[in-house]
Amino acid sequence: MYNIKERDIDLCMHKGVVWIITVGNELLIGRVVNTNAAWLAGKLTFLGYLVKRILVVPDDEDDIVESFRDGLKRADVVISTGGLGPTPDDITNLAFCKALGVEPVVNEEALKMVKEKYETRGYPLTPERVKMAKMPPGARPLPNPVGTAPGILYEAEDKIAVLLPGVPREMEAIFESYVEPLLKSRGPPIYFAEKALVVKGAPEADVAPIIREVLKLDPRVYVKSHPKGYEVEAPFLYIHIYASATKLQDAENLVNIALDKLIQLLKTRFGEKIQISIETGR
Amino acid sequence: MYNIKERDIDLCMHKGVVWIITVGNELLIGRVVNTNAAWLAGKLTFLGYLVKRILVVPDDEDDIVESFRDGLKRADVVISTGGLGPTPDDITNLAFCKALGVEPVVNEEALKMVKEKYETRGYPLTPERVKMAKMPPGARPLPNPVGTAPGILYEAEDKIAVLLPGVPREMEAIFESYVEPLLKSRGPPIYFAEKALVVKGAPEADVAPIIREVLKLDPRVYVKSHPKGYEVEAPFLYIHIYASATKLQDAENLVNIALDKLIQLLKTRFGEKIQISIETGR
Repeated sequence: MYNIKERDIDLCMHKGVVWIITVGNELLIGRVVNTNAAWLAGKLTFLGYLVKRILVVPDDEDDIVESFRDGLKRADVVISTGGLGPTPDDITNLAFCKALGVEPVVNEEALKMVKEKYETRGYPLTPERVKMAKMPPGARPLPNPVGTAPGILYEAEDKIAVLLPGVPREMEAIFESYVEPLLKSRGPPIYFAEKALVVKGAPEADVAPIIREVLKLDPRVYVKSHPKGYEVEAPFLYIHIYASATKLQDAENLVNIALDKLIQLLKTRFGEKIQISIETGR
Repeated sequence: MYNIKERDIDLCMHKGVVWIITVGNELLIGRVVNTNAAWLAGKLTFLGYLVKRILVVPDDEDDIVESFRDGLKRADVVISTGGLGPTPDDITNLAFCKALGVEPVVNEEALKMVKEKYETRGYPLTPERVKMAKMPPGARPLPNPVGTAPGILYEAEDKIAVLLPGVPREMEAIFESYVEPLLKSRGPPIYFAEKALVVKGAPEADVAPIIREVLKLDPRVYVKSHPKGYEVEAPFLYIHIYASATKLQDAENLVNIALDKLIQLLKTRFGEKIQISIETGR
């Protein structure tokens, strides 16, 4: 069995805390489910970052300004989605400037990107289109391979802010092309691994002391049960085990050790009464 | 045509601002999509409430305490999901007490609910199960018709806090049985109506000035476009129109007036180049 000796990093203290700010009234009236936040959170976790907050805020300047200010104070990386397009309520780039206390400027490189997109079809450069090229001085536009509004990258004093469009396929394309490589090179040297256990026949409240026992193994391991059945009548648990470590091998070993321990304790406690199966991957 | 005269309420100032706090590491590592928040936000919107923030916080006492304190300061109603179960990381009820500055007590009514659930199957009342009955003094347990952890209702100084489990079917059942009737009776007399327009062939940036025009009709109307196609190559917009008013009839009329105006302006601007269809309901 792999021997875990090193506790070389306090994962709670590591550089690489992220806040995700998702902007849009459609999320606050329940019209749209926030799949953007989940997608980004998954990506960031596997990149070794620790997502500490996801915020959903309305298309309102004060709310957006406030959340950027909070995020830049509390996190190392702030990533927003939504509000970069041409409509009147697309104001995230302007609110971000306000949060920084600077006047927005038309970024020439961004303007060129926007112009090229429209000119190919003979569309003129209206004020709505020029707005999409506005950002803080010193920011860098991120090309949008599938849409028109560029993303925005802003770095200052050890902090990184990334503004992405709200359209999922545009957000994902910009993230994968430009943000992921950057965050990978800058991020903490931390790797994430996970497995899940499906357990039928054991009530969550009786599994709780076993999970507490497994959690004692190592502070880098996390185990959480999610009830999917009916606690008393037909208990059915989905137990998620994950770990973060400075080597991928360590993270995977930690997960496997915790998984073995969990299965062993479950079998000792419940014997033949329960059915167990292991799930890997997402 | 219906004549809109009354602007009897400033909807931004209305009582009934809600913050939703969703607790769970699984949401921050992107393992689970936050469907609970979307479901609650939809319900609350149709009940006349204004959801101003959705927060996702980890299973960490400090983070949960902080968000309850912020929420109780800034909103009229705070609703949380997650962290009411029997496992070690289910600490929302205890963190809520800390946010209020009170010691948790075992609520006898809640303990009876928990006890009954388990006793029917001969399960003993372990410390993990007793924990689910802990709440602030003066709080009211909300029976869980499909699970074991009761919800928690707490009222003080014109504020309402509701703590719900994270398992969607339990959260929904408690909300519909106990929270919805309460919020309906206490809430602002505001009604919500919506329709959507699907527009093919018009780029979002050219529709933006038209939306700005429609928004001038009435401050109670909101119009937002969501690009679903490719802005330049194959533009395809989903335009959502909604309104809130003190009478359902007014809200519906506002939506219809805005919709008519929108269609008229789109046809004038784009003529035969575009295809339009109306969608009702969610």
